[in-house]
Amino acid sequence: MTLITKLSKRYASKQMNGKKLPQDKVDNILEAIRLAPTSMGLQPFKILVVESQELKNKIFEVAAPGQPQIPNASQVLVFACYRKVTDEILDNYFDLINKTRPMLAKEKVAAYRNMMNGLLNKTADENFQWAARQAYIALGFGLAAAAEQEVDSVPIEGYNPGVLDKLLNLSERNLGSVCMLAIGYRNEETDYNARLPKVRKSTQDLFELL
Amino acid sequence: MTLITKLSKRYASKQMNGKKLPQDKVDNILEAIRLAPTSMGLQPFKILVVESQELKNKIFEVAAPGQPQIPNASQVLVFACYRKVTDEILDNYFDLINKTRPMLAKEKVAAYRNMMNGLLNKTADENFQWAARQAYIALGFGLAAAAEQEVDSVPIEGYNPGVLDKLLNLSERNLGSVCMLAIGYRNEETDYNARLPKVRKSTQDLFELL
Repeated sequence: MTLITKLSKRYASKQMNGKKLPQDKVDNILEAIRLAPTSMGLQPFKILVVESQELKNKIFEVAAPGQPQIPNASQVLVFACYRKVTDEILDNYFDLINKTRPMLAKEKVAAYRNMMNGLLNKTADENFQWAARQAYIALGFGLAAAAEQEVDSVPIEGYNPGVLDKLLNLSERNLGSVCMLAIGYRNEETDYNARLPKVRKSTQDLFELL
Repeated sequence: MTLITKLSKRYASKQMNGKKLPQDKVDNILEAIRLAPTSMGLQPFKILVVESQELKNKIFEVAAPGQPQIPNASQVLVFACYRKVTDEILDNYFDLINKTRPMLAKEKVAAYRNMMNGLLNKTADENFQWAARQAYIALGFGLAAAAEQEVDSVPIEGYNPGVLDKLLNLSERNLGSVCMLAIGYRNEETDYNARLPKVRKSTQDLFELL
């Protein structure tokens, strides 16, 4: 089956069945997320991989009561972005660049750091909106990899971020959640979304050739 | 080669060679973008597929002089989001839902429309930031599909959106660009990025198991 066929078959599961995914499928989805490109390579986020049944139940109960997939998902991934880019974050990133790319001229790395220092002068809201977009590229990679693995998945924005962030102590870590991704297996009997045709704009309507 | 291996091999090409991609590869990338999920299914964006050499040159010259990939890319995709969600946009979407899912109860569709009417009361900036995130999921799908097709690609945020939007008359169409995606083939001789190891946070650093 081609990737396009698999992407055509994916949909936002409304009910999952509680079965655990094999670890290699989870690892492949996480690895795709890790490999996703981000602006200037910073990966300005953390991914919390919630496997604890108690915590999944709690998230559903207090932060996302409209999302019944959550308790019966195999994992719920919380995408949490930096609220503010700090010197420490940039220091860690440039340590990683120096370790991974020792062949780069020191002046080149210094010039890149200078350019990235611009992020330190942005407001927290500007940083956060920018970081959120980067996290959504990674969300896209996670969704595509789940489809490729024939794993059901659903991106979740319909939740209370204030409540979730408090539950996970995100704010005190300079993080804020921007979305969740539930992965697992659909409940064949109760997932009404599984039987509906996909709604998408036509090629003619979505694309314009210039 | 697995999808993960292909994603590991992809990188942001800094120089392309001007060769045209076969149309079936372009079509697969566009189809992945079309299939990407978005919040409430609205797909609040248009994708301009720039093939005209003159227009690619112009974009590079006036809006993105720091991005030398652009003139030699096979296609440059401009992701342009709705600046404001309007009644007309929602009408078109619900026409599409009714056409694609005639089996849905009318009350259910009406309730969904009522819920989505909430978007009409948001500020233009709130709509735009939300729409931009959705476009970045589609950007992720496009990047992953390009890698799967063994096509080189580079997401581009480093450009002047005011200038690009004016060049493409986007504002008067209630659209604003949020990013570009150049696709094509690397220039083996001049693409210095092709020879550098990928910089990514380690699994231990990026993920946290709860």
